[in-house]
Amino acid sequence: MRIKLNHNLEQLEISGIRLFNSQTTAYDDVIKLTIGEPKFATPEPIKDALKASLDKNRTFYPSFAGSDTLKKEIIAYEKRINQVDYAMDEILITQGATGAIFAALGSILNPGDEVILFQPTYVAYQPAVEFYHGKPVFVDTTPNQFQLDYEAIKKAITPKTKAMIVNSPNNPTGVIYNEDSLNIIKRVLDEHDLFVISDDVYAQLVYDNATFLNQDSDYKDKIILTQSLSKPYAMTGWRIGYLCAHKDIIKSAHKVQQYAAAGIPLFIQDAAEVALNTNVDSMKVFYKQNRDDVVKLLQEHHVPFVYPQGAFYIFINISAKGLDSWTFATQLLHEKHVAVIPGVVFSQHSDHYIRISLAASNQECIEGVTRLIHFLQGQA
Amino acid sequence: MRIKLNHNLEQLEISGIRLFNSQTTAYDDVIKLTIGEPKFATPEPIKDALKASLDKNRTFYPSFAGSDTLKKEIIAYEKRINQVDYAMDEILITQGATGAIFAALGSILNPGDEVILFQPTYVAYQPAVEFYHGKPVFVDTTPNQFQLDYEAIKKAITPKTKAMIVNSPNNPTGVIYNEDSLNIIKRVLDEHDLFVISDDVYAQLVYDNATFLNQDSDYKDKIILTQSLSKPYAMTGWRIGYLCAHKDIIKSAHKVQQYAAAGIPLFIQDAAEVALNTNVDSMKVFYKQNRDDVVKLLQEHHVPFVYPQGAFYIFINISAKGLDSWTFATQLLHEKHVAVIPGVVFSQHSDHYIRISLAASNQECIEGVTRLIHFLQGQA
Repeated sequence: MRIKLNHNLEQLEISGIRLFNSQTTAYDDVIKLTIGEPKFATPEPIKDALKASLDKNRTFYPSFAGSDTLKKEIIAYEKRINQVDYAMDEILITQGATGAIFAALGSILNPGDEVILFQPTYVAYQPAVEFYHGKPVFVDTTPNQFQLDYEAIKKAITPKTKAMIVNSPNNPTGVIYNEDSLNIIKRVLDEHDLFVISDDVYAQLVYDNATFLNQDSDYKDKIILTQSLSKPYAMTGWRIGYLCAHKDIIKSAHKVQQYAAAGIPLFIQDAAEVALNTNVDSMKVFYKQNRDDVVKLLQEHHVPFVYPQGAFYIFINISAKGLDSWTFATQLLHEKHVAVIPGVVFSQHSDHYIRISLAASNQECIEGVTRLIHFLQGQA
Repeated sequence: MRIKLNHNLEQLEISGIRLFNSQTTAYDDVIKLTIGEPKFATPEPIKDALKASLDKNRTFYPSFAGSDTLKKEIIAYEKRINQVDYAMDEILITQGATGAIFAALGSILNPGDEVILFQPTYVAYQPAVEFYHGKPVFVDTTPNQFQLDYEAIKKAITPKTKAMIVNSPNNPTGVIYNEDSLNIIKRVLDEHDLFVISDDVYAQLVYDNATFLNQDSDYKDKIILTQSLSKPYAMTGWRIGYLCAHKDIIKSAHKVQQYAAAGIPLFIQDAAEVALNTNVDSMKVFYKQNRDDVVKLLQEHHVPFVYPQGAFYIFINISAKGLDSWTFATQLLHEKHVAVIPGVVFSQHSDHYIRISLAASNQECIEGVTRLIHFLQGQA
């Protein structure tokens, strides 16, 4: 039998990050600065909340949209952190930000619709757009220090443009969009009938003052906020996040959630309520220390990089070595036993960068980056 | 701003079951025989396994495909129960059967592909097919005592037919496909290049001997098995199930899983391993008792019904009352405070039936059906 499958899916590739990461098991002593996952286990109070929920036998069908009590906590949280008022029918509980982006794109895209992605870009946006037979349209931010450029966006907009995906703090660069970038987005929203999907999964991991798009209520109905509990609360494996948007979008996204998953376990939702009220400053202090130590090391050795104001990544310029980023990362792995992500994975325009994750231990960050500097500068 | 959303989703309706069920809150004393959810909480050993997994800090990213240890348990389970050998790359862990069907359809459907659904049909198949721009083609089983008819299927097949969805034991009828029906499916598979999605979520809730399609290894590569831990282990809220299929289908379904959810929590997968080895005969005895008691009651009062050999539903013929099923169920709710699902929800051909769930308590089943019989036979 000839297996005739979904052509569209056949063309979607497994993420380059996972592909490269699978090579890193070649040696026992590899320092892995690849995956953006906190090294911390989930804090005890959150685990305890799940256990208590199980003891209350919260093992029955959840509603598709999410529990009312968690939605109320999210409303309180968004009000407290971002000073935005959401109503109960403007929230959907999802499988992490992955599920939120999947439901957000599903709620708005018709086949052929275009979605603007800013390069370098998080690797999961493009296949999610293509899953819905949408067309990703790339706008390179490299020439503009990874901030946004009005003219470049205007050139990318067509009558088919349905949305832009904005990710600040950014993966892979750690850049936070400045006032100019935010004003550019607002100007584009004033001039065009389109949505912004604001992927704010790193918004709690910010090391200096910063402003975010969704804090401006004037644009609330054009913004689809996707959020996750994964990074700030060390809950990557829990697969819980949420979507905040206009109620018509939530109604549509709700159907995606209904057909794809039929809801999130209640005991996970109950624990998420506790998470949103857990103080996680100590983790932020840890990442900031890693950032500061690595920044200092790179500066001391005159290695160019993008200064990260948020998230837990540093995007390091490797032009000095004269290798493309995949070759660079491969040689670094084999010669120095340090694993990093090649910049080409995020854009063909960032093939002279590699991304390291600062979510490893401080010792691993310092030792890994020291070896990387030696490799970059041709030392044994 | 005019909200321009996904047209395709806009046309997909929220399930008639949920719609009707939302009416049942009108009275405090309603006997609910609507939703197909076990009344039992999840057994303690399964809850304990989740807690132990949390204590081991299994809170990090899962792989998209599922944990190797759970996949091994599934292989052992399918071998033990169905005598079929699956390889590790023929299994994908999903969000219940909902996620399994979503991934299965996603893995094979191109826009315009047709999927044969047997009516009366579980309500979630049609929107899931339409989600992928597929076309459901209905084959009515009412004239054939809810078994399959070769000529009817042949008439429905076109060059665009990609799959049939088979659900045995069946929701809503409780019917198990007999040897003739299984042979018809095999003959169709011999004659046509198409898949069977075999939704076996009730296969453990069988009250007499029965044979299933996936037990014939000769057809293994044409069968996509979707399974859930929800019903047999009282784990509806855990959202865990799995898909067994040819490795190329799994590879494609894996991408759906990657973009839609990014995997299932490890602590849930760990608990699922324990579930697959938990004896749940006592629950089966409970449902069988409900079935036997309700069957006896209906027979005593000469009410026609479909004899259910599996699952926990009875499909009752309400022709005697001369009302359509929605009106019947609505009046029954208001006059007798008993909630049932109108048969029209499952097919326009079963508008002279209502479905009751046997997952309620024995007392509720008996009292609810007694009131239903009074209503049907015009007694006060």
